[in-house]
Amino acid sequence: MQTEPIQNLIQELSKLPGIGEKTAERLAFHLLSRQKDEVLRLADALRDLKEQVKSCGSCYNTSDQDPCAICSDPKRDRTVVCVVEQMQDLWAIEKSGSYRGLYHVLHGRLAPLDGVGPEHLTISKLVDRVRKGDVAEVILATNPTMEGDATAYYLRSALAAPNLRVTRIARGVPAGGSLEYSNRTIVADALQGRREL
Amino acid sequence: MQTEPIQNLIQELSKLPGIGEKTAERLAFHLLSRQKDEVLRLADALRDLKEQVKSCGSCYNTSDQDPCAICSDPKRDRTVVCVVEQMQDLWAIEKSGSYRGLYHVLHGRLAPLDGVGPEHLTISKLVDRVRKGDVAEVILATNPTMEGDATAYYLRSALAAPNLRVTRIARGVPAGGSLEYSNRTIVADALQGRREL
Repeated sequence: MQTEPIQNLIQELSKLPGIGEKTAERLAFHLLSRQKDEVLRLADALRDLKEQVKSCGSCYNTSDQDPCAICSDPKRDRTVVCVVEQMQDLWAIEKSGSYRGLYHVLHGRLAPLDGVGPEHLTISKLVDRVRKGDVAEVILATNPTMEGDATAYYLRSALAAPNLRVTRIARGVPAGGSLEYSNRTIVADALQGRREL
Repeated sequence: MQTEPIQNLIQELSKLPGIGEKTAERLAFHLLSRQKDEVLRLADALRDLKEQVKSCGSCYNTSDQDPCAICSDPKRDRTVVCVVEQMQDLWAIEKSGSYRGLYHVLHGRLAPLDGVGPEHLTISKLVDRVRKGDVAEVILATNPTMEGDATAYYLRSALAAPNLRVTRIARGVPAGGSLEYSNRTIVADALQGRREL
């Protein structure tokens, strides 16, 4: 005879990606053994996620303010816009500490087979933004996958304008990787993208 | 620049066992993309866990009522008490559908090296319960580990009384397992515990 609140929690937890029934059970029993305030902090964090997070009207990054902290930061270079598929990619770039421009989050990539066309992404907003702003360069940082590449090519045409540089992130052997364990696409990319030393 | 509510949630999620920062991030982004009511259901389930779950004053199973649903079920056999280390074990036995008696949850096992003595478990409550009730058999279902065995031996002495059967769950090769892949303790247990066919 299983207790309803525990059963409920297990059911809700097992809806999360990568969390099966067994893991959900383990998590629920762990939470049962924790202090009440610790569990409530998690409950509140979930609530706040949905109640406080909105979308930035400029770059479509999710944020607790609009415009978001990046768009409203006076120290960022407003002449460069880096286009990413999703927020996670933006975070990855921010964590690298190697970029000081603005972003534009597409919220997906073109995937005709899944019925995702340009109208499902924030592409027209990007085009408007670039047209009216003083953007000098758009960096296409969609992933180096078939769909990411297709999205980049589409964006290059959509954005084409005099005095606008449209660039694509580099692809090659990842830092710390080796040629030996790279597949042939990676090796081909690395050779094709070679640069003067 | 990461949004505070998302950061918060990632931090809370990564406190859970087996969930590292990367998984917490993935879960948070997943939740961000879900409907609000779905996320709030999870938040509420967490809150209810701490607010509605109490301990049964008889068997120390956690439950939303006291006595718990098992102890108050008139169809269960009140002359048999199965002693388990933790609630998860009780659930496992219930799921097997092979037991119709009552339970007693110790909330741990004797572990002198970790400073867990009889006074940290619900052992004295079990002894009182067996002494005053009409219990005919106590099944010791602590795990077949060193500490589970030690706890069982301790309980056998503590419970010893005329007209009381104290039994221990069987150990051997698990159903579906094979001798070939069983370790020598399992094989020895299986041989030692052999029964007439």
